Amino acid sequence: MESVSQTAYRSQGFIGKYQRLIKDVVIPYQYSVLCDKAPDTEKSHVIANFVNAGKALRGEDVGDGFYGMVFQDSDAAKWLEAAAYSLALFPDKELEKTADELIEIIAAAQDEDGYLDTYFTIKDREKRWTNLLEAHELYCAGHMMEAAVAYRESTGKDKLLKVMLKNVQHIYDIFITQKHGGVPGHPEVELALLKMYRATGEKKCLELAEYFIDQRGKDTDFYKREAEKRDWTVWGSDPADNEYRQCGRPVREQTDAVGHAVRAVYLYTGMAELAAESGDKELLAACRRLWDSIVKRRMYLTGGIGSTVHGEAFSVDYDLPPDTAYCETCASIGLMFFALAMLKNEVKGEYADIMERAFYNTVLAGIQLDGKRFFYVNPLEVIPGISGVSPTHRHDLPQRPKWYACACCPPNAARLISSLGKYAYGEDESTMFCHLFAAGSVDFQNGGKITCETGYPYELTVNYTVVKGGKTLAVRIPSWSKVFSVTRNDEQISLAPKNGYIYVDVSDGDRITLTLDGSPRFIYPSAKLHDISGMVALARGPLVYCFEGADNGGDVVSLSLDTAGEARVQPYDEVLLGGTVKISVSALKTEDIDGLYSEDAPKRTPVTAVAVPYFTWGNRGENQMRVWMNRG
Amino acid sequence: MESVSQTAYRSQGFIGKYQRLIKDVVIPYQYSVLCDKAPDTEKSHVIANFVNAGKALRGEDVGDGFYGMVFQDSDAAKWLEAAAYSLALFPDKELEKTADELIEIIAAAQDEDGYLDTYFTIKDREKRWTNLLEAHELYCAGHMMEAAVAYRESTGKDKLLKVMLKNVQHIYDIFITQKHGGVPGHPEVELALLKMYRATGEKKCLELAEYFIDQRGKDTDFYKREAEKRDWTVWGSDPADNEYRQCGRPVREQTDAVGHAVRAVYLYTGMAELAAESGDKELLAACRRLWDSIVKRRMYLTGGIGSTVHGEAFSVDYDLPPDTAYCETCASIGLMFFALAMLKNEVKGEYADIMERAFYNTVLAGIQLDGKRFFYVNPLEVIPGISGVSPTHRHDLPQRPKWYACACCPPNAARLISSLGKYAYGEDESTMFCHLFAAGSVDFQNGGKITCETGYPYELTVNYTVVKGGKTLAVRIPSWSKVFSVTRNDEQISLAPKNGYIYVDVSDGDRITLTLDGSPRFIYPSAKLHDISGMVALARGPLVYCFEGADNGGDVVSLSLDTAGEARVQPYDEVLLGGTVKISVSALKTEDIDGLYSEDAPKRTPVTAVAVPYFTWGNRGENQMRVWMNRG
Repeated sequence: MESVSQTAYRSQGFIGKYQRLIKDVVIPYQYSVLCDKAPDTEKSHVIANFVNAGKALRGEDVGDGFYGMVFQDSDAAKWLEAAAYSLALFPDKELEKTADELIEIIAAAQDEDGYLDTYFTIKDREKRWTNLLEAHELYCAGHMMEAAVAYRESTGKDKLLKVMLKNVQHIYDIFITQKHGGVPGHPEVELALLKMYRATGEKKCLELAEYFIDQRGKDTDFYKREAEKRDWTVWGSDPADNEYRQCGRPVREQTDAVGHAVRAVYLYTGMAELAAESGDKELLAACRRLWDSIVKRRMYLTGGIGSTVHGEAFSVDYDLPPDTAYCETCASIGLMFFALAMLKNEVKGEYADIMERAFYNTVLAGIQLDGKRFFYVNPLEVIPGISGVSPTHRHDLPQRPKWYACACCPPNAARLISSLGKYAYGEDESTMFCHLFAAGSVDFQNGGKITCETGYPYELTVNYTVVKGGKTLAVRIPSWSKVFSVTRNDEQISLAPKNGYIYVDVSDGDRITLTLDGSPRFIYPSAKLHDISGMVALARGPLVYCFEGADNGGDVVSLSLDTAGEARVQPYDEVLLGGTVKISVSALKTEDIDGLYSEDAPKRTPVTAVAVPYFTWGNRGENQMRVWMNRG
Repeated sequence: MESVSQTAYRSQGFIGKYQRLIKDVVIPYQYSVLCDKAPDTEKSHVIANFVNAGKALRGEDVGDGFYGMVFQDSDAAKWLEAAAYSLALFPDKELEKTADELIEIIAAAQDEDGYLDTYFTIKDREKRWTNLLEAHELYCAGHMMEAAVAYRESTGKDKLLKVMLKNVQHIYDIFITQKHGGVPGHPEVELALLKMYRATGEKKCLELAEYFIDQRGKDTDFYKREAEKRDWTVWGSDPADNEYRQCGRPVREQTDAVGHAVRAVYLYTGMAELAAESGDKELLAACRRLWDSIVKRRMYLTGGIGSTVHGEAFSVDYDLPPDTAYCETCASIGLMFFALAMLKNEVKGEYADIMERAFYNTVLAGIQLDGKRFFYVNPLEVIPGISGVSPTHRHDLPQRPKWYACACCPPNAARLISSLGKYAYGEDESTMFCHLFAAGSVDFQNGGKITCETGYPYELTVNYTVVKGGKTLAVRIPSWSKVFSVTRNDEQISLAPKNGYIYVDVSDGDRITLTLDGSPRFIYPSAKLHDISGMVALARGPLVYCFEGADNGGDVVSLSLDTAGEARVQPYDEVLLGGTVKISVSALKTEDIDGLYSEDAPKRTPVTAVAVPYFTWGNRGENQMRVWMNRG
């Protein structure tokens, strides 16, 4: 199974609306941020960094011309990648011109030996490749490779791809020819090199990806020796903390998802992509173990991962507090990468299930409905006055900020959404895969062509029309849909899912309708999750629901859901939260007491509690929000 | 109301057993730690520091002769204070000799100008009084003053008191005569100076206490200016963080209990003691506001305060997570100090209620039943595998360590328990006050004398016999005892509590029996406490109960208590946990599910859950512990 190409999917419906939002609002807004033209927000300076690096290379004195994080370059790369995907969906001369100009600026910032990184080019050329622990040179290179591949795929233009091939040659010289010995402190270049390899056939890309993956965790003292040779540091990172950067042991021996969550899933994606490329069973077995570690023991209901603010990291098994959750948007995006890479190894519904869970919940929650504000951290519970204020909850903001000093998440969400077709649809020679239910049309490279009509995720019916068939249509049956029905040309057909997919033989003109279970579902946590044991959550279709003060008289902590009572799905509301479906649930409201503790059981009154999809939370001002509710 | 003298109370029963444990085990064990003779534990070096300081003063080269925290001296002071109290209870020539010798060592470490602090005397005499922000000179002095007062009270010997009077004169010269301008970064000397004043009548003690209290928060830039004048630091503390050390505004204007919890309650104790001394209504009003801030919005059910590990500090209102709680043992000891100081201002049951709550729960939990291990941090929930391990739970240990590098809590608990008579009993000219129900005999200075027989806290009946009367016996009726009965010489008498106390006129030979409510009580939290909203706790008498894995098949997180079902108090068990009373409660046990989340309501089976007093937790190896339980 491979993803469809970026130009294959023309979106409609829910996904179409989001892709249009990215094009109309997010990409222009983010570009204004990158150019430091957005009012009242964090300074970016990233374009200026590239301009200054170019000047520095031409011998101009740019003084203190770098501003931002050591990985600031990657914001431009991710924006460019998002713009590339968007250009494939919505041709736009103006945007393409802006992107072309940016590529010129980037190309001019490349050193003659192929090196490309504004931090060192501006600050100190001599320090290149001396701080793999912290300096993110390979991370930034990886992101720029991804942008280059995307831009060529969307526009056919290969200027940036050539720049990055030259950059690959430079990296090859350093790491293979000159045997540098190190691996990146922040994985990312591995998955990017595999994209480069697929896009160009350049074997050095594959060789480098293999090197970075195979070498990881083999030389556990590397960062310590590296640090000893240096008299400077970016953040004073501990070179002995191998767990943080997943290099405590060779990747094939790793069993638990540990350390910085984004680093982890970017690495695992690279590993899974390499396994798909090479057929390396041992590597795939490691990927499966790490996948299980995440989804069976270390993942929030919303597909959020990395539960602790300390190192933005995975914690131990079953440590998933809802209110102090970290759940970085980028980590859930990375989890989608990992899931898609696993699907390339084996078509199993569980990978697409998790991809969908992460997308419709944590990833979308990362973006305000108007596309102008973003969450980096996605808690499952917010209490105004505590969240964002108390020392242990300072990272859990009750409202989305406009931008971040560390701005990895907003452009990451933009590129993910703009390329959603690659996650929704896949193909091999004989099969058209539908992993996610994304309305629109799809032109498969295998010759098949379908259209998909659906009001998903709110309507749970999906209508496929086969424009050009002769292929098998493989459609995922989500594990949450205990019942489903399929018709072909209005006739019921009976198909048992195989590894979570039904495989339907289709011909031109066939109409396949899948009806999934649209009833609201209560979700119960394992008793091992001590933070939420005994509580209950609500979901419908792929959407996890939450309860906000705005719908519930200001206070949701005092509500206990009656799981034996009625949960009623409301009609689609076009106005509310940009169009959504509320669910109302029988509940009891506990009267507050005077003081902190009472020996009299507080009075409880029957009420109707109202839930909205989790991803829409925080769009109506600061108020309480809860996913896990008391059960009464 | 004043406390009785240390020699007034001869303990029996539960308190007697604890005071005996302190004498037999804790004091000798702690002394061996202070002398670095305890095996397998943190190094203390505190006695050696004093020896080395004395040598340094005599011109000997002691090189790098100081080891430990900048406030290491205070461990010796607190031990000496505990030893002093214990000597009043249990005369012991050997211990007195050891204490006398230690006092000689301490006296020899005093500089000729009266200065006494081994850190600066050994390391750098020139740096004295240049880092009030961090260096704890006044904190250490305060603890030594308390020890000096206690030792004179218990033994009549005044060598250390004279040393500390000379030290007071030195501090007076620095802060009053030479107008230093600063206040201590860690309050403590205020309450100690008031003890010194009461013990000696020396007006300079009162004047200094007034200065340190009145000056606090008036010069909010002091620490910044002080830091600018210095080229060294102890910990790199932020001199601008006035909230951490309660000096963001003058004390009379403070409204919320903020910052480092121990600093806070030590300061508030000093303020309340001064208000009791001076009759300052404005100061008392501030104390009342700060008291309310703690007990109405920032205190755990166990009397634990300071909910966050970040700065060992108070958090915002209603932020009281059970599993990541800090609840330093010293902070609850300090809360008892504050409560007792408030009682001296006004005899109100609520102060003694909180004193009792803190003592029987958090303070006693700080000590292993065998007296050999100690908790610094007292969580209300412990999950092996997460507690003490996960980055957010690293401070919440599932088992008591032997000692700590920062060893403030163990000797603090020892001095508190050894002087418990002062908290249990008070007096004025006409009244004998009984705040806590402590078995034994009490010789009041007002001429009254009583004995008290009780199996409290397990038996809720208290029998007083008036040996010498002609006074009023004032006995607190705890707010948790909704019903109670009193008899005089076996005849029921009807008395309405006044501010939480009944006042009984008694004559020689009278027998007064108070019977309190011994039924188990379910406790419900305010809906504002989002971490535990909808949960329930169990208490009986002054004891908060907890559920441990040891009594419940290993797992208590899966249990939901049936508050409508039966809660049965078991007979006193002489063997279990050094003698205790279990409570069994009807509950439902939730079967665990496969994976993290289930759409099927997990099966629940009726079981009997067993609770033990919170203070006894963690005495049977590592296992789950919960105070707040699910309600089923």
